[in-house]
Amino acid sequence: MIYSFMCDYSEGAHPVVLKAVADECGKQHGNYGIDECCDKAAALIKNSIHRSDADVHFLPGGTAVNLTVIAHALRPFEAVIAAKTGHIAVHETGAIEASGHKVVTVEGTDGKLTPKEVEDAVLFHTDEHMVRPAMVYISNSTELGTIYTKSELTALRKCCDEHGLLLMLDGARLFCALASVENDLSLADIAALTDCFYIGGTKNGALFGEALVILNDNLKTAFRFSIKQRGHLTAKGFLLGAQFEALFTDMLGLDIARHENKCAAEIANTLKDLDVPFFAPAQTNQLFPILPDVIAEKLGEDFELSIWKKYDASHSVVRLVTSWSTPQWAVDALNEKLTKLCK
Amino acid sequence: MIYSFMCDYSEGAHPVVLKAVADECGKQHGNYGIDECCDKAAALIKNSIHRSDADVHFLPGGTAVNLTVIAHALRPFEAVIAAKTGHIAVHETGAIEASGHKVVTVEGTDGKLTPKEVEDAVLFHTDEHMVRPAMVYISNSTELGTIYTKSELTALRKCCDEHGLLLMLDGARLFCALASVENDLSLADIAALTDCFYIGGTKNGALFGEALVILNDNLKTAFRFSIKQRGHLTAKGFLLGAQFEALFTDMLGLDIARHENKCAAEIANTLKDLDVPFFAPAQTNQLFPILPDVIAEKLGEDFELSIWKKYDASHSVVRLVTSWSTPQWAVDALNEKLTKLCK
Amino acid sequence: MIYSFMCDYSEGAHPVVLKAVADECGKQHGNYGIDECCDKAAALIKNSIHRSDADVHFLPGGTAVNLTVIAHALRPFEAVIAAKTGHIAVHETGAIEASGHKVVTVEGTDGKLTPKEVEDAVLFHTDEHMVRPAMVYISNSTELGTIYTKSELTALRKCCDEHGLLLMLDGARLFCALASVENDLSLADIAALTDCFYIGGTKNGALFGEALVILNDNLKTAFRFSIKQRGHLTAKGFLLGAQFEALFTDMLGLDIARHENKCAAEIANTLKDLDVPFFAPAQTNQLFPILPDVIAEKLGEDFELSIWKKYDASHSVVRLVTSWSTPQWAVDALNEKLTKLCK
Amino acid sequence: MIYSFMCDYSEGAHPVVLKAVADECGKQHGNYGIDECCDKAAALIKNSIHRSDADVHFLPGGTAVNLTVIAHALRPFEAVIAAKTGHIAVHETGAIEASGHKVVTVEGTDGKLTPKEVEDAVLFHTDEHMVRPAMVYISNSTELGTIYTKSELTALRKCCDEHGLLLMLDGARLFCALASVENDLSLADIAALTDCFYIGGTKNGALFGEALVILNDNLKTAFRFSIKQRGHLTAKGFLLGAQFEALFTDMLGLDIARHENKCAAEIANTLKDLDVPFFAPAQTNQLFPILPDVIAEKLGEDFELSIWKKYDASHSVVRLVTSWSTPQWAVDALNEKLTKLCK
Repeated sequence: MIYSFMCDYSEGAHPVVLKAVADECGKQHGNYGIDECCDKAAALIKNSIHRSDADVHFLPGGTAVNLTVIAHALRPFEAVIAAKTGHIAVHETGAIEASGHKVVTVEGTDGKLTPKEVEDAVLFHTDEHMVRPAMVYISNSTELGTIYTKSELTALRKCCDEHGLLLMLDGARLFCALASVENDLSLADIAALTDCFYIGGTKNGALFGEALVILNDNLKTAFRFSIKQRGHLTAKGFLLGAQFEALFTDMLGLDIARHENKCAAEIANTLKDLDVPFFAPAQTNQLFPILPDVIAEKLGEDFELSIWKKYDASHSVVRLVTSWSTPQWAVDALNEKLTKLCK
Repeated sequence: MIYSFMCDYSEGAHPVVLKAVADECGKQHGNYGIDECCDKAAALIKNSIHRSDADVHFLPGGTAVNLTVIAHALRPFEAVIAAKTGHIAVHETGAIEASGHKVVTVEGTDGKLTPKEVEDAVLFHTDEHMVRPAMVYISNSTELGTIYTKSELTALRKCCDEHGLLLMLDGARLFCALASVENDLSLADIAALTDCFYIGGTKNGALFGEALVILNDNLKTAFRFSIKQRGHLTAKGFLLGAQFEALFTDMLGLDIARHENKCAAEIANTLKDLDVPFFAPAQTNQLFPILPDVIAEKLGEDFELSIWKKYDASHSVVRLVTSWSTPQWAVDALNEKLTKLCK
Repeated sequence: MIYSFMCDYSEGAHPVVLKAVADECGKQHGNYGIDECCDKAAALIKNSIHRSDADVHFLPGGTAVNLTVIAHALRPFEAVIAAKTGHIAVHETGAIEASGHKVVTVEGTDGKLTPKEVEDAVLFHTDEHMVRPAMVYISNSTELGTIYTKSELTALRKCCDEHGLLLMLDGARLFCALASVENDLSLADIAALTDCFYIGGTKNGALFGEALVILNDNLKTAFRFSIKQRGHLTAKGFLLGAQFEALFTDMLGLDIARHENKCAAEIANTLKDLDVPFFAPAQTNQLFPILPDVIAEKLGEDFELSIWKKYDASHSVVRLVTSWSTPQWAVDALNEKLTKLCK
Repeated sequence: MIYSFMCDYSEGAHPVVLKAVADECGKQHGNYGIDECCDKAAALIKNSIHRSDADVHFLPGGTAVNLTVIAHALRPFEAVIAAKTGHIAVHETGAIEASGHKVVTVEGTDGKLTPKEVEDAVLFHTDEHMVRPAMVYISNSTELGTIYTKSELTALRKCCDEHGLLLMLDGARLFCALASVENDLSLADIAALTDCFYIGGTKNGALFGEALVILNDNLKTAFRFSIKQRGHLTAKGFLLGAQFEALFTDMLGLDIARHENKCAAEIANTLKDLDVPFFAPAQTNQLFPILPDVIAEKLGEDFELSIWKKYDASHSVVRLVTSWSTPQWAVDALNEKLTKLCK
């Protein structure tokens, strides 16, 4: 195996992030996220969104954030609306349902939700014999590597306001979305348009950790109780703080994401040149080319990748992901192999 | 403030553990705990208990392990028996109840359960109008710093067998228990006498992480589904593997614990010389002296500590904890201050 | 308003069932379903399916049975497969999710599941990052009034066996299914082909109550714990027993269902004569004609009915339901009005 | 066996209640509690407490009410405080925990809670590592047959207000409490002093059913969603309405309770004359005499009763309960037998 393009969490931390962790290891800190490292990281994040009123919490992983927020925010009979490709809908082993809540799924387009779909889902639920939708969950970048435009997100916010819905944004790959050449959303825009969102560290050069930003006052109350109850209150929380301080210093996080996106773009360009169609637009560090099965198999001999789904009798949607650590030689080698196979 | 004796997770990782993490950061690894680091660490652990049939899983924290195991093991109407000082009974924000299960508490002695108490709790529950106790949860070392003897643990196992109960051992501080000068239990004994137990890394020199060892075949099935569902399947699981490989190489984990216990013993000896009574026997790295409030307060001016509980109108039980990183000078300074205050 | 065809639970109990309740009111009985009335009813039911090994429990309502069985049968990470029209999928306010389990929905045809859909749903779930389907839930008659044939149910059973799935049949309207002129399934067939099923009383002439029949030994253990835990262990359980004894004496339950179906058939015939299309085949006591909105509205002035869903811009699917108590004059009046409106 | 004093739900409905049910059986009604019977019953109840703003819901049983209210009212990390003899703490198979909430138990006196105990429980819970008590649950009459005085309930209310706690009163046997010769609380007092309470029908002459009265506006919102989600929204809800209309017409419910209490008082007087001590004061229809085991056993040959608990090596606490239907001859026979055995 030459290199793995399976995912963006196969390697540890970016050297700068690792050093930040190492530098704090010998000192004594406060516990459970009440410490100077977390304070500093939270201050940097709040500054970057111009929202001194935001609450910032650091949790160890994405599923942890999703289930904690949703369990915290919803009343027992309330449901969350998600695209059927949404992480909470498929790839969290029923974590949301385990906390008691239905995930109402809608079709989505390229992994994104439209206000029309949200509205239809709300109107379908008419009375107390059905769950009550109370939140919309979106990902940016999505599970298909696509990103929301400012106008799309603004329209979703409007729809949520009209129907009394919370809007939560899963930003496990938010840095990659922000670093996309097609992006027109700032971090401050996202803060202005959502009730809460998180900024992923795990998939962007951290050892582990996500920074949850809560804007809606109703969600702020007693949130640490929920983190603890779900088992996600990291004892040495300063480790999370230190990493996010590093990611937000000189916006290292964005630099890392730009590298991921650039590597992916080079692969996407090769695929486009070879007339390979895409299952979803190539906008960030995840690519979903539709390859003949025979080529996917040959490619898999040299490069680890995942088969996203069967496309038709002889083709599959393949997922290729670049990471903070993807080297140029691996991109080149992949492109060379692709060219050889597809020509 | 001179030094904090608040807890054993105020500092990051022991240098050897940190180096192990750093060494793996640049390489590509399998995800979610399916990787060579976890394989090696699991092999070392299985070897140390002479149980090649054991299943080993690495989770990020202690509450995470407790709630995942209990939710996985019990049927909806089943309950777990714990000492009223047990971590799951008090200090996990109802995490067990949030997964649907009652924690049946019994009084306990020095944080430890007796077979008699367990049996009484079982016999109290007579029919389908009450929960059905199905598991016993113990900690070693306990939340009061005490340890189980081999004969105590053997008697509990016998009681559990007689009543069809699973026996789970919370080993968040297991290394400290094993390293206690009063300990007569081997890791292999613990594996032989429990259905599952875990070995704490977080409080013993790791950045984060606990190694869960499952011995009972019934608990093994589909356990990774439960880890994922609760949000505790660490994406970069190799980081946990690397740390436990370090802790089990030349039994570094035990060396760390011996240091913790030795520091604590020096403080305990000072306290005993000063005729300070203890709320629970001083056996590991947590000490619970009963101090006059006025002295506790003065001590608190120089050293961070926690007030465990009021003892009487003028005394409090104070908790002092040493860590992998506690320096001799801090122990000496504390002893000096104690001597000055108590004489 | 002349008459309501809204549902089959607008009236109380059939006179024979009511008399059975009244006859037991003055006597002393055992509690919580441990009594002679329940014993007798259970014996009649077990006899009717030739299964002395079955366990029979009486619960107060259909949602109560569904959530209790599913919560009892599934492990936390397991899911139940249902048609998207299934009662548990839409009309129970997330009761299944509230017990922690995902309902995996498939399209279905006329409210019925096919083995192919079940298999596809199973194969979609590949690993521990997704829930594990472990049960198939069907209704007979379905929420669209249709019934399973013996060959359809046999094929589903075979599919369930191949994939290790439990098969649960919601029989809230089972008597109507059995009484359908198109039915070829006996109660004994249903017992032979499912892991558990229930026989609805509420919608078939009882005050309230469903008889759950458990065939699979694994589901039998400790089932009364689950009934109690969910709050469905009726204190005066003998009232449920007395009603089911009445329904199974000389198969009164089937006679009631035949009346319901006959009333519905007369309405269906009128509609067919008027060339009104149906959203689902008319097989039992629930009819789903597709009516022009203007006619549905006019009809609604004299008869209560429900609008199931919009069909297109100018038509709606209307639901008409007959009950144990529907009088001939009401059927005639409805038919007359329909004829007048549709001609 | 001559007669059973096991409980107050061994017989069906009081003739007047039964007739009320029978009278409604042939008519068409609204469903799920939206009907004229429920409207009338609710109006009578609201009138009796002088609270037109109250919300009244009818549910099928006591555990159903307890778990529905508590799951509806509490946030995930919140807990309910109860006496250790409280029904939710012991005799509901962990129903509250199954909805995710811890029951914090305190000792209690004669089954009753004191403000001091409540306050101690609140103060014990200091931060987000522990659950947050948010509700106090009491029963009146209690599980030991005792009743709260107006001054006791007022003091509890004051304590709840000071600590931001909801106060819920389980009135499965509220009519008996109100009918006690020692009672000084009116139904209006109870409405004024609690956030919600319920009035038991099942144990007071109804076939089944409890009337939940919600006074606190915060608890009112969307409550029917919770009833449905837990499976307790009775399809033929008018049956519950009809029964409560009967119980509140000319206060039949109180008359029934007076009969129950009078029967019990006659037995209590006999026991007192025989110098039999009581485990708890005899105030309503449940008596808890402490009898020598040998006498309890002999008594059990003629009369069904329950052994509440062992008192000492040779004595047991026996529970004797009278019902709406207990005949004078059974009381006389029991008294005669007691006199014969104890003299």
